Amino acid sequence: MLKAQVEQLVGPSGEGFKAAQTAICGDAIRTPLLPLQSGSGREIRVKAECLQPYGSFKIRAASNLLAGFSAEELSGGVACPSAGNFGQGLAYAASRRGVPLTVHAPANAAEVKLQVMRELGATVVVHPFDDWWEIMSTRDTGRDDGLFVHPVCEPRVIVGNGTIGLELAEDWPEFDTIVVPVGGGGLISGIALALHSIGHPARIIACEVETAAPLSAALEAGHPVAIDRRDSFVDGIGSTRLLDEMWPLLHELVEEVIVVTVAEAKHGVRLAAGQAHLVVEGAAGVALAAALSPSCPGDRVVAVLSGGNIDHQQLCNILG
Amino acid sequence: MLKAQVEQLVGPSGEGFKAAQTAICGDAIRTPLLPLQSGSGREIRVKAECLQPYGSFKIRAASNLLAGFSAEELSGGVACPSAGNFGQGLAYAASRRGVPLTVHAPANAAEVKLQVMRELGATVVVHPFDDWWEIMSTRDTGRDDGLFVHPVCEPRVIVGNGTIGLELAEDWPEFDTIVVPVGGGGLISGIALALHSIGHPARIIACEVETAAPLSAALEAGHPVAIDRRDSFVDGIGSTRLLDEMWPLLHELVEEVIVVTVAEAKHGVRLAAGQAHLVVEGAAGVALAAALSPSCPGDRVVAVLSGGNIDHQQLCNILG
Repeated sequence: MLKAQVEQLVGPSGEGFKAAQTAICGDAIRTPLLPLQSGSGREIRVKAECLQPYGSFKIRAASNLLAGFSAEELSGGVACPSAGNFGQGLAYAASRRGVPLTVHAPANAAEVKLQVMRELGATVVVHPFDDWWEIMSTRDTGRDDGLFVHPVCEPRVIVGNGTIGLELAEDWPEFDTIVVPVGGGGLISGIALALHSIGHPARIIACEVETAAPLSAALEAGHPVAIDRRDSFVDGIGSTRLLDEMWPLLHELVEEVIVVTVAEAKHGVRLAAGQAHLVVEGAAGVALAAALSPSCPGDRVVAVLSGGNIDHQQLCNILG
Repeated sequence: MLKAQVEQLVGPSGEGFKAAQTAICGDAIRTPLLPLQSGSGREIRVKAECLQPYGSFKIRAASNLLAGFSAEELSGGVACPSAGNFGQGLAYAASRRGVPLTVHAPANAAEVKLQVMRELGATVVVHPFDDWWEIMSTRDTGRDDGLFVHPVCEPRVIVGNGTIGLELAEDWPEFDTIVVPVGGGGLISGIALALHSIGHPARIIACEVETAAPLSAALEAGHPVAIDRRDSFVDGIGSTRLLDEMWPLLHELVEEVIVVTVAEAKHGVRLAAGQAHLVVEGAAGVALAAALSPSCPGDRVVAVLSGGNIDHQQLCNILG
């Protein structure tokens, strides 16, 4: 259903992804693809989405989302549930267009991110986690706060994320494998669909951290299942269960999932800082760790460093 | 003399800078120019040279230098004095060409940088600081170790650095001011000459840290003078005296110099990490601090973040 919506949006030869590339210019930047001396025997390059405004790839989705509505449709405002990165990206894109925004956040969201949203003019409503997850699942905020947009299960979100795939195919046509962290699954789905639309044959590899691996569990069970989730410094990915709506896409598009340890994810964060001079968050450390893993296939591998929003105390615990 | 050599190298309309842009492709990357929310009332963008291989703009100079010699000229090897960043860049460029390299380093050079050079195949010779400075001044290594190249006073080094100016003029033609950290002075000279060659009118602003400000002292005295220098975390810029050979260029090209405090430089490092998600070294922190300073002119300002090679313990002291 979601897949059909995306396919309708991008058209038979994927021209919608190219249109999104144009639409997001000005909000998002074209991030560099940086070579890494990995010593792993394979060539690894990192797509530095942590360099986007407000530090994550989500600005691509947020920008493409707003670009798809008319001024009239946006005049009543926009509402979305978000734990942080998407809300920040959407607040930035909305502030540039003068669009009123309400972000519904879970109680465990990082206060620093909520503060950024407020400074950009957004109204932030904080809910107990279960109520927030209810909004994520039902799309009902219980308020009349405008056009509801979902941070993951939204065709324009997925297409916006897909612009990463087009950039990679232009910058390094020879890459044979891409490693993408999976939270909701919108990032990997968008990239995979964009690569397919231009006939690029790269292997699509998902990655998760051992403390929260709902995709691995779903692939094993053949359907989304609730998992035990432990907290770790990797806070941008890993929920307790995949969204049912995303499962058909993920099931079809993901070729393999690599699960890394927390220690490996920390090594990824250290390598990004020490060698690429990038500040990255846990999910990006997971991607780099997975690309370095002996179980990663391929000779020319892209790791998508999805974001850079890490607490500096946390960062220094890892670097120290 | 050096200026005349550069002018001869680039030709009357500066085509040599464009040739350098092509020559360094493959070794150096085209770094992104990232917008910063500075809250300073002016628009600031940062040129992220810390993302270059081995973490500094020096790869541009090193690459352009080697590109200017024939295979026969390079067959006897190359020798250079360097305290770190240039040596790393040259070691990388030399290793890609199979050119033997000897780096002469001062005793206070960071061991981690020397280790990188050795891993890239370079021979590293460590000298007491005064002997090393003698090599910088006389170009005599006392050994028969090949073609001598100077890390600063070398036309191809200056032209290689100038490629930054061309990229900026392409990426943000409207910028009106550029802030560049001054160590030897090769970076700011190259950028200024490249901008002049294409008729770009940006103000050329140098910056230094209060603990080591030989350019400010020279501008005041009307010629290079020895200064008192104190150590700080800003270790990539600030010698005890400008090189005489660079003075005519700096005197002509630099419109103004901004001197920042160590505390301001630290704020620059924090801002780069927190907002741009970049790991930068002291000199780059100085550039960002100067761009934020009330004494910086301009509405559209570029800060050149020259490198990212900072000790992580040091970085965490600043972030913590």
